[in-house]
Amino acid sequence: MILHGYFRSTAAWRVRIALALKGLAYEQAFHHLRRGEQRAADYLAVNPQGLVPALVLGDGAVLTQSLAIVEYLDETHPSPPLLPADPVGRARVRAFALAIACDIHPVQNLIVLDHLRRVGLDEDAVQAWAREVIDRGLSACERLLEASDGPFAFGDAPGLADLCLVPQLANARRFGVDLRWPRIAAVEAACAEVPAFVAARPENQPDAE
Amino acid sequence: MILHGYFRSTAAWRVRIALALKGLAYEQAFHHLRRGEQRAADYLAVNPQGLVPALVLGDGAVLTQSLAIVEYLDETHPSPPLLPADPVGRARVRAFALAIACDIHPVQNLIVLDHLRRVGLDEDAVQAWAREVIDRGLSACERLLEASDGPFAFGDAPGLADLCLVPQLANARRFGVDLRWPRIAAVEAACAEVPAFVAARPENQPDAE
Repeated sequence: MILHGYFRSTAAWRVRIALALKGLAYEQAFHHLRRGEQRAADYLAVNPQGLVPALVLGDGAVLTQSLAIVEYLDETHPSPPLLPADPVGRARVRAFALAIACDIHPVQNLIVLDHLRRVGLDEDAVQAWAREVIDRGLSACERLLEASDGPFAFGDAPGLADLCLVPQLANARRFGVDLRWPRIAAVEAACAEVPAFVAARPENQPDAE
Repeated sequence: MILHGYFRSTAAWRVRIALALKGLAYEQAFHHLRRGEQRAADYLAVNPQGLVPALVLGDGAVLTQSLAIVEYLDETHPSPPLLPADPVGRARVRAFALAIACDIHPVQNLIVLDHLRRVGLDEDAVQAWAREVIDRGLSACERLLEASDGPFAFGDAPGLADLCLVPQLANARRFGVDLRWPRIAAVEAACAEVPAFVAARPENQPDAE
Protein backbone atom coordinates (compact mmCIF):
# COMPACT_ATOMS: atom_id res chain seq x y z
CA MET A 1 0.00 0.00 0.00
CA ILE A 2 1.09 3.55 -0.72
CA LEU A 3 -0.30 6.44 1.32
CA HIS A 4 -0.25 9.74 -0.53
CA GLY A 5 -0.07 12.50 2.05
CA TYR A 6 1.67 15.49 3.54
CA PHE A 7 3.13 15.57 7.02
CA ARG A 8 0.96 18.47 8.13
CA SER A 9 -2.36 17.37 6.55
CA THR A 10 -4.66 16.44 9.42
CA ALA A 11 -6.69 14.21 7.09
CA ALA A 12 -3.57 12.19 6.11
CA TRP A 13 -2.58 12.12 9.79
CA ARG A 14 -5.88 10.38 10.66
CA VAL A 15 -5.07 7.61 8.20
CA ARG A 16 -1.49 7.27 9.49
CA ILE A 17 -2.87 6.67 12.99
CA ALA A 18 -5.34 4.06 11.71
CA LEU A 19 -2.62 2.22 9.77
CA ALA A 20 -0.36 2.25 12.82
CA LEU A 21 -3.13 1.06 15.18
CA LYS A 22 -3.78 -1.83 12.78
CA GLY A 23 -0.06 -2.57 12.55
CA LEU A 24 -0.08 -2.34 8.75
CA ALA A 25 3.06 -1.65 6.71
CA TYR A 26 2.88 0.94 3.93
CA GLU A 27 4.98 3.27 1.82
CA GLN A 28 4.43 7.01 1.72
CA ALA A 29 4.39 9.47 -1.17
CA PHE A 30 4.52 13.14 -0.27
CA HIS A 31 2.79 16.11 -1.84
CA HIS A 32 3.68 19.53 -0.49
CA LEU A 33 0.31 21.24 -0.14
CA ARG A 34 1.63 24.78 0.29
CA ARG A 35 3.56 24.39 -2.97
CA GLY A 36 0.40 23.07 -4.69
CA GLU A 37 1.92 19.68 -5.51
CA GLN A 38 -1.47 18.01 -4.91
CA ARG A 39 -2.65 19.68 -8.13
CA ALA A 40 0.21 18.31 -10.28
CA ALA A 41 -0.92 16.17 -13.23
CA ASP A 42 0.71 13.00 -11.93
CA TYR A 43 -1.17 13.25 -8.63
CA LEU A 44 -4.48 14.21 -10.25
CA ALA A 45 -4.16 10.94 -12.16
CA VAL A 46 -4.21 9.21 -8.75
CA ASN A 47 -6.88 11.38 -7.09
CA PRO A 48 -8.88 13.65 -9.40
CA GLN A 49 -10.06 15.62 -6.36
CA GLY A 50 -6.48 16.86 -5.87
CA LEU A 51 -6.64 16.24 -2.13
CA VAL A 52 -4.63 14.12 0.28
CA PRO A 53 -4.83 11.48 1.55
CA ALA A 54 -5.22 8.75 -1.06
CA LEU A 55 -4.40 5.13 -0.34
CA VAL A 56 -3.29 2.99 -3.27
CA LEU A 57 -3.87 -0.70 -2.60
CA GLY A 58 -1.65 -3.54 -3.77
CA ASP A 59 -3.84 -4.14 -6.86
CA GLY A 60 -3.76 -0.46 -7.83
CA ALA A 61 -7.23 0.45 -6.52
CA VAL A 62 -7.24 4.01 -5.19
CA LEU A 63 -9.19 4.96 -2.07
CA THR A 64 -9.79 8.60 -1.14
CA GLN A 65 -11.32 10.59 1.74
CA SER A 66 -9.76 9.86 5.11
CA LEU A 67 -12.91 8.58 6.86
CA ALA A 68 -13.75 6.23 3.98
CA ILE A 69 -10.18 4.90 4.07
CA VAL A 70 -10.33 4.35 7.83
CA GLU A 71 -13.66 2.49 7.52
CA TYR A 72 -12.10 0.33 4.76
CA LEU A 73 -9.12 -0.49 6.98
CA ASP A 74 -11.47 -1.37 9.83
CA GLU A 75 -13.59 -3.65 7.62
CA THR A 76 -10.61 -5.46 6.07
CA HIS A 77 -8.46 -5.63 9.25
CA PRO A 78 -11.00 -5.86 12.09
CA SER A 79 -8.50 -6.10 14.94
CA PRO A 80 -8.18 -3.90 16.90
CA PRO A 81 -11.60 -2.41 16.10
CA LEU A 82 -11.84 1.34 15.49
CA LEU A 83 -15.61 1.39 16.06
CA PRO A 84 -17.78 -0.17 18.79
CA ALA A 85 -19.81 -3.28 18.00
CA ASP A 86 -23.32 -1.92 18.69
CA PRO A 87 -25.08 0.27 16.09
CA VAL A 88 -25.89 3.17 18.47
CA GLY A 89 -22.30 3.22 19.75
CA ARG A 90 -21.00 3.17 16.17
CA ALA A 91 -23.33 6.05 15.27
CA ARG A 92 -22.07 8.12 18.21
CA VAL A 93 -18.40 7.57 17.32
CA ARG A 94 -19.06 8.35 13.66
CA ALA A 95 -21.01 11.48 14.62
CA PHE A 96 -18.07 12.69 16.68
CA ALA A 97 -15.67 12.03 13.79
CA LEU A 98 -18.00 13.85 11.37
CA ALA A 99 -18.37 16.80 13.77
CA ILE A 100 -14.63 17.28 13.17
CA ALA A 101 -14.35 16.11 9.56
CA CYS A 102 -17.40 18.06 8.28
CA ASP A 103 -17.97 20.91 10.71
CA ILE A 104 -14.46 21.98 11.72
CA HIS A 105 -11.73 20.84 9.36
CA PRO A 106 -13.13 21.89 5.95
CA VAL A 107 -14.05 25.36 7.23
CA GLN A 108 -10.55 26.09 8.55
CA ASN A 109 -8.35 24.35 6.00
CA LEU A 110 -5.87 25.87 3.58
CA ILE A 111 -8.34 26.03 0.66
CA VAL A 112 -10.84 28.13 2.60
CA LEU A 113 -8.23 30.33 4.29
CA ASP A 114 -6.59 31.07 0.92
CA HIS A 115 -10.03 31.85 -0.48
CA LEU A 116 -10.63 34.31 2.37
CA ARG A 117 -7.29 36.01 1.59
CA ARG A 118 -8.25 36.24 -2.09
CA VAL A 119 -11.56 37.96 -1.31
CA GLY A 120 -9.70 40.58 0.70
CA LEU A 121 -9.55 39.56 4.37
CA ASP A 122 -6.36 40.58 6.13
CA GLU A 123 -4.25 37.98 7.93
CA ASP A 124 -5.63 38.85 11.38
CA ALA A 125 -9.19 38.29 10.16
CA VAL A 126 -8.22 35.00 8.48
CA GLN A 127 -6.62 33.70 11.68
CA ALA A 128 -9.61 34.88 13.73
CA TRP A 129 -11.93 32.98 11.37
CA ALA A 130 -9.99 29.74 11.89
CA ARG A 131 -9.90 30.24 15.67
CA GLU A 132 -13.66 30.88 15.85
CA VAL A 133 -14.53 27.82 13.73
CA ILE A 134 -12.27 25.53 15.75
CA ASP A 135 -13.37 26.95 19.11
CA ARG A 136 -17.06 26.48 18.35
CA GLY A 137 -16.45 23.02 16.94
CA LEU A 138 -14.35 21.74 19.81
CA SER A 139 -16.86 23.13 22.33
CA ALA A 140 -19.47 20.92 20.67
CA CYS A 141 -17.04 17.96 20.68
CA GLU A 142 -16.49 18.38 24.42
CA ARG A 143 -20.25 18.10 24.99
CA LEU A 144 -20.40 15.00 22.77
CA LEU A 145 -17.79 13.39 25.05
CA GLU A 146 -19.49 14.22 28.34
CA ALA A 147 -21.73 11.16 28.27
CA SER A 148 -18.90 8.72 27.48
CA ASP A 149 -16.28 7.07 29.65
CA GLY A 150 -12.56 7.54 29.17
CA PRO A 151 -9.71 7.43 29.07
CA PHE A 152 -10.16 7.58 25.30
CA ALA A 153 -12.97 9.42 23.52
CA PHE A 154 -15.37 6.48 23.74
CA GLY A 155 -14.03 3.94 26.19
CA ASP A 156 -10.87 2.10 27.00
CA ALA A 157 -9.29 1.88 23.55
CA PRO A 158 -8.56 4.49 20.88
CA GLY A 159 -10.58 4.50 17.66
CA LEU A 160 -12.12 6.60 14.91
CA ALA A 161 -13.06 9.45 17.26
CA ASP A 162 -9.59 9.74 18.78
CA LEU A 163 -7.78 9.63 15.45
CA CYS A 164 -9.88 12.56 14.25
CA LEU A 165 -9.54 14.55 17.48
CA VAL A 166 -5.76 14.48 17.98
CA PRO A 167 -4.80 16.01 14.61
CA GLN A 168 -7.51 18.67 14.97
CA LEU A 169 -6.00 19.72 18.32
CA ALA A 170 -2.67 20.38 16.59
CA ASN A 171 -4.48 22.70 14.19
CA ALA A 172 -6.18 24.37 17.15
CA ARG A 173 -2.79 25.11 18.71
CA ARG A 174 -1.41 26.42 15.44
CA PHE A 175 -4.17 29.04 15.34
CA GLY A 176 -3.88 29.91 19.06
CA VAL A 177 -7.16 28.38 20.27
CA ASP A 178 -7.42 28.20 24.07
CA LEU A 179 -7.70 24.45 24.72
CA ARG A 180 -9.90 24.74 27.79
CA TRP A 181 -11.88 21.47 27.55
CA PRO A 182 -11.07 18.89 30.26
CA ARG A 183 -12.41 15.75 28.54
CA ILE A 184 -10.67 16.65 25.29
CA ALA A 185 -7.40 17.26 27.16
CA ALA A 186 -7.69 13.90 28.93
CA VAL A 187 -8.29 12.08 25.62
CA GLU A 188 -5.28 13.77 24.05
CA ALA A 189 -3.11 12.80 27.04
CA ALA A 190 -4.25 9.17 26.80
CA CYS A 191 -3.50 9.06 23.05
CA ALA A 192 -0.03 10.56 23.60
CA GLU A 193 0.91 7.35 25.44
CA VAL A 194 -0.04 5.11 22.50
CA PRO A 195 2.89 4.27 20.16
CA ALA A 196 0.66 4.37 17.04
CA PHE A 197 -0.25 7.98 17.80
CA VAL A 198 3.40 8.89 18.37
CA ALA A 199 4.52 7.26 15.11
CA ALA A 200 1.85 9.13 13.14
CA ARG A 201 2.76 12.61 14.37
CA PRO A 202 3.76 15.14 11.67
CA GLU A 203 7.24 15.68 13.08
CA ASN A 204 7.93 11.95 12.80
CA GLN A 205 7.27 11.83 9.03
CA PRO A 206 10.07 11.84 6.43
CA ASP A 207 8.74 15.01 4.77
CA ALA A 208 8.56 17.04 8.00
CA GLU A 209 10.17 20.47 7.79
CA MET B 1 -38.53 7.73 15.79
CA ILE B 2 -38.52 11.51 15.53
CA LEU B 3 -36.45 13.27 12.89
CA HIS B 4 -35.50 16.82 13.84
CA GLY B 5 -34.99 18.75 10.65
CA TYR B 6 -35.86 21.64 8.39
CA PHE B 7 -37.37 21.26 4.95
CA ARG B 8 -34.50 23.06 3.23
CA SER B 9 -31.59 21.50 5.15
CA THR B 10 -29.75 19.26 2.70
CA ALA B 11 -28.34 17.20 5.59
CA ALA B 12 -31.86 16.47 6.92
CA TRP B 13 -32.98 15.76 3.35
CA ARG B 14 -30.33 13.00 3.06
CA VAL B 15 -31.81 11.27 6.12
CA ARG B 16 -35.38 11.65 4.82
CA ILE B 17 -34.35 9.84 1.63
CA ALA B 18 -32.68 7.04 3.63
CA LEU B 19 -35.73 6.60 5.87
CA ALA B 20 -38.00 6.50 2.82
CA LEU B 21 -35.78 4.02 0.94
CA LYS B 22 -35.88 1.76 4.01
CA GLY B 23 -39.65 2.19 4.29
CA LEU B 24 -39.43 3.36 7.90
CA ALA B 25 -42.18 5.38 9.58
CA TYR B 26 -41.15 8.44 11.63
CA GLU B 27 -42.43 11.71 13.00
CA GLN B 28 -40.84 15.03 12.17
CA ALA B 29 -40.00 18.03 14.36
CA PHE B 30 -39.13 21.24 12.55
CA HIS B 31 -36.57 23.90 13.39
CA HIS B 32 -36.51 26.98 11.20
CA LEU B 33 -32.80 27.52 10.55
CA ARG B 34 -33.07 31.06 9.22
CA ARG B 35 -34.91 32.07 12.40
CA GLY B 36 -32.19 30.38 14.51
CA GLU B 37 -34.58 27.87 16.09
CA GLN B 38 -31.82 25.21 16.04
CA ARG B 39 -30.11 27.23 18.79
CA ALA B 40 -33.15 27.32 21.10
CA ALA B 41 -32.56 25.75 24.54
CA ASP B 42 -35.07 22.95 24.01
CA TYR B 43 -33.32 21.83 20.84
CA LEU B 44 -29.83 22.19 22.27
CA ALA B 45 -30.99 19.73 24.94
CA VAL B 46 -31.56 17.25 22.07
CA ASN B 47 -28.44 18.09 20.01
CA PRO B 48 -25.80 20.22 21.77
CA GLN B 49 -24.21 20.96 18.37
CA GLY B 50 -27.31 22.98 17.44
CA LEU B 51 -27.48 21.42 14.00
CA VAL B 52 -30.09 19.42 12.11
CA PRO B 53 -30.70 16.58 11.57
CA ALA B 54 -31.00 14.62 14.79
CA LEU B 55 -32.83 11.31 14.97
CA VAL B 56 -34.41 10.39 18.31
CA LEU B 57 -34.92 6.64 18.61
CA GLY B 58 -37.81 4.94 20.39
CA ASP B 59 -35.76 4.54 23.59
CA GLY B 60 -34.77 8.22 23.61
CA ALA B 61 -31.23 7.75 22.24
CA VAL B 62 -30.25 10.70 20.06
CA LEU B 63 -28.23 10.25 16.87
CA THR B 64 -26.66 13.21 15.08
CA GLN B 65 -24.75 13.89 11.85
CA SER B 66 -26.56 12.80 8.71
CA LEU B 67 -23.98 10.28 7.46
CA ALA B 68 -23.72 8.61 10.87
CA ILE B 69 -27.53 8.36 10.99
CA VAL B 70 -27.68 6.86 7.48
CA GLU B 71 -25.00 4.27 8.38
CA TYR B 72 -27.01 3.42 11.53
CA LEU B 73 -30.18 2.93 9.49
CA ASP B 74 -28.29 0.73 7.03
CA GLU B 75 -26.82 -1.42 9.82
CA THR B 76 -30.12 -1.85 11.66
CA HIS B 77 -32.34 -2.19 8.56
CA PRO B 78 -30.09 -3.86 5.97
CA SER B 79 -32.66 -4.09 3.17
CA PRO B 80 -32.42 -2.45 0.72
CA PRO B 81 -28.68 -1.84 1.24
CA LEU B 82 -27.38 1.71 0.89
CA LEU B 83 -23.76 0.56 0.48
CA PRO B 84 -22.24 -2.20 -1.70
CA ALA B 85 -21.14 -5.46 -0.07
CA ASP B 86 -17.41 -5.36 -0.95
CA PRO B 87 -15.00 -3.17 1.06
CA VAL B 88 -13.51 -1.33 -1.92
CA GLY B 89 -16.96 -0.60 -3.30
CA ARG B 90 -18.10 0.63 0.11
CA ALA B 91 -15.03 2.88 0.35
CA ARG B 92 -15.75 4.42 -3.07
CA VAL B 93 -19.38 5.17 -2.21
CA ARG B 94 -18.40 6.62 1.16
CA ALA B 95 -15.67 8.73 -0.47
CA PHE B 96 -18.23 10.16 -2.88
CA ALA B 97 -20.60 10.95 -0.01
CA LEU B 98 -17.78 12.59 1.95
CA ALA B 99 -16.67 14.61 -1.08
CA ILE B 100 -20.09 16.26 -0.77
CA ALA B 101 -20.56 16.17 3.01
CA CYS B 102 -17.05 17.44 3.86
CA ASP B 103 -15.78 19.30 0.82
CA ILE B 104 -18.87 21.03 -0.56
CA HIS B 105 -21.73 21.34 1.91
CA PRO B 106 -19.96 22.78 4.99
CA VAL B 107 -18.15 25.40 2.91
CA GLN B 108 -21.35 26.74 1.32
CA ASN B 109 -23.84 26.38 4.14
CA LEU B 110 -25.70 29.11 6.02
CA ILE B 111 -23.17 29.29 8.88
CA VAL B 112 -20.26 30.05 6.58
CA LEU B 113 -22.21 32.39 4.30
CA ASP B 114 -23.44 34.38 7.31
CA HIS B 115 -19.87 34.49 8.58
CA LEU B 116 -18.71 35.89 5.24
CA ARG B 117 -21.39 38.58 5.45
CA ARG B 118 -20.26 39.47 8.98
CA VAL B 119 -16.65 39.90 7.91
CA GLY B 120 -17.75 42.35 5.25
CA LEU B 121 -18.33 40.54 1.95
CA ASP B 122 -21.16 41.95 -0.12
CA GLU B 123 -23.99 39.69 -1.28
CA ASP B 124 -22.56 39.22 -4.79
CA ALA B 125 -19.26 38.01 -3.34
CA VAL B 126 -21.05 35.66 -0.94
CA GLN B 127 -23.07 34.11 -3.76
CA ALA B 128 -19.94 33.84 -5.93
CA TRP B 129 -18.17 32.02 -3.08
CA ALA B 130 -20.96 29.44 -2.84
CA ARG B 131 -21.05 28.97 -6.62
CA GLU B 132 -17.28 28.46 -6.81
CA VAL B 133 -17.23 25.91 -3.96
CA ILE B 134 -20.12 23.92 -5.43
CA ASP B 135 -18.78 24.08 -8.99
CA ARG B 136 -15.34 22.80 -8.00
CA GLY B 137 -16.85 20.11 -5.79
CA LEU B 138 -19.34 18.81 -8.34
CA SER B 139 -16.63 18.75 -11.02
CA ALA B 140 -14.70 16.38 -8.75
CA CYS B 141 -17.86 14.34 -8.12
CA GLU B 142 -18.41 13.92 -11.87
CA ARG B 143 -14.90 12.46 -12.21
CA LEU B 144 -15.55 10.11 -9.28
CA LEU B 145 -18.60 8.80 -11.18
CA GLU B 146 -16.85 8.24 -14.51
CA ALA B 147 -15.57 4.78 -13.56
CA SER B 148 -18.94 3.54 -12.28
CA ASP B 149 -22.00 2.21 -14.05
CA GLY B 150 -25.43 3.81 -13.84
CA PRO B 151 -28.18 4.53 -13.86
CA PHE B 152 -27.56 5.49 -10.22
CA ALA B 153 -24.28 6.85 -8.87
CA PHE B 154 -22.83 3.40 -8.25
CA GLY B 155 -24.92 0.81 -10.03
CA ASP B 156 -28.50 -0.19 -10.46
CA ALA B 157 -29.95 0.91 -7.12
CA PRO B 158 -29.82 4.21 -5.23
CA GLY B 159 -27.76 4.45 -2.04
CA LEU B 160 -25.58 6.65 0.14
CA ALA B 161 -23.95 8.44 -2.81
CA ASP B 162 -27.25 9.29 -4.50
CA LEU B 163 -28.90 10.54 -1.31
CA CYS B 164 -26.02 12.98 -0.81
CA LEU B 165 -25.90 14.11 -4.43
CA VAL B 166 -29.55 14.96 -5.05
CA PRO B 167 -29.92 17.52 -2.21
CA GLN B 168 -26.58 19.12 -3.14
CA LEU B 169 -27.87 19.67 -6.69
CA ALA B 170 -30.81 21.65 -5.30
CA ASN B 171 -28.33 23.90 -3.51
CA ALA B 172 -26.32 24.21 -6.71
CA ARG B 173 -29.41 25.46 -8.54
CA ARG B 174 -30.26 27.89 -5.74
CA PHE B 175 -26.87 29.57 -6.21
CA GLY B 176 -27.03 29.52 -10.02
CA VAL B 177 -24.37 26.87 -10.70
CA ASP B 178 -24.31 25.67 -14.32
CA LEU B 179 -25.13 21.95 -14.00
CA ARG B 180 -23.06 20.84 -16.96
CA TRP B 181 -22.06 17.31 -15.84
CA PRO B 182 -23.67 14.46 -17.83
CA ARG B 183 -23.21 11.61 -15.33
CA ILE B 184 -24.52 13.76 -12.48
CA ALA B 185 -27.53 14.79 -14.57
CA ALA B 186 -28.27 11.15 -15.42
CA VAL B 187 -28.10 10.13 -11.74
CA GLU B 188 -30.46 12.93 -10.77
CA ALA B 189 -32.92 11.89 -13.49
CA ALA B 190 -32.83 8.27 -12.29
CA CYS B 191 -33.45 9.33 -8.68
CA ALA B 192 -36.37 11.57 -9.71
CA GLU B 193 -38.25 8.40 -10.72
CA VAL B 194 -37.87 6.79 -7.29
CA PRO B 195 -40.81 7.44 -4.91
CA ALA B 196 -38.53 7.68 -1.84
CA PHE B 197 -36.67 10.57 -3.45
CA VAL B 198 -39.93 12.31 -4.36
CA ALA B 199 -41.35 11.93 -0.84
CA ALA B 200 -38.19 13.41 0.70
CA ARG B 201 -38.12 16.57 -1.40
CA PRO B 202 -38.26 19.88 0.53
CA GLU B 203 -41.51 21.02 -1.09
CA ASN B 204 -43.21 17.82 0.09
CA GLN B 205 -42.46 18.47 3.79
CA PRO B 206 -45.06 19.93 6.18
CA ASP B 207 -42.82 22.90 7.07
CA ALA B 208 -42.18 23.92 3.44
CA GLU B 209 -42.76 27.60 2.73
